[in-house]
Amino acid sequence: MQHKSFADMTCPIARSLEHVGEWWSMLILRDAFGGTTRFDDFQQSLGIAPNMLTRRLAALVEAGLLERRRYSERPPRDEYVLTERGRDFKPVLVALVAFGKKHFAAPGRAVPSRFAGVFSPPPLPSAPPPRSTPRRAAKAARP
Amino acid sequence: MQHKSFADMTCPIARSLEHVGEWWSMLILRDAFGGTTRFDDFQQSLGIAPNMLTRRLAALVEAGLLERRRYSERPPRDEYVLTERGRDFKPVLVALVAFGKKHFAAPGRAVPSRFAGVFSPPPLPSAPPPRSTPRRAAKAARP
Repeated sequence: MQHKSFADMTCPIARSLEHVGEWWSMLILRDAFGGTTRFDDFQQSLGIAPNMLTRRLAALVEAGLLERRRYSERPPRDEYVLTERGRDFKPVLVALVAFGKKHFAAPGRAVPSRFAGVFSPPPLPSAPPPRSTPRRAAKAARP
Repeated sequence: MQHKSFADMTCPIARSLEHVGEWWSMLILRDAFGGTTRFDDFQQSLGIAPNMLTRRLAALVEAGLLERRRYSERPPRDEYVLTERGRDFKPVLVALVAFGKKHFAAPGRAVPSRFAGVFSPPPLPSAPPPRSTPRRAAKAARP
């Protein structure tokens, strides 16, 4: 995709998109929040071409949202784990979940079970209320 | 960019990205929240090629996030206004602002003034506290 570098812009939205604006990157982060860490698991989940997945993982490591960790020496194998910066991206995905559920829900189809609870309850004023009871929600909200 | 259709996925994140995942789309929405409505103003703000801007605006209208309104018959001129669905996208941009400010801030450079206040205070638990005084904040938080 052709575009000028958004990193030159002062806007924090533009500067964030420079690092995580690519479609696949957000879905890789979504899977990482769901507990995925290994190349083959990302690939199977996303149906993404291996060379594209390699590039996007490298970009997310470069941007400091994922950390590469070796978990096997023979054969050499790395896994990809969310950094603190990566975990700070969660509110963006939570907001996207709330928006997508409201406006682009797949009729009669639920959120894939491996993400159940990962991005909810959404802590946004415009989002629908969480499914837990008021008592449980109040307890969970306590510091 | 090559990708399989995210609309086939059940995940609300994937389904949202199908409609607004393109980099430019989010920046067009950002400008729309800042009050921009006209083609020339979007183009000047974004430095985007006219044919690309035409395509992205049409896609956002098609997805129901923007509405096209004729404001001049001679010459024929349209403007683009956020729909209710488009306005519901704001929490995503608010979350991106908070993330971008924390992790990819441009040193010594502030948010462009035309967006001042548009995306703040961020109503997210992990975001920095709003700049208003505690008394004002408490008052504003009252139902």
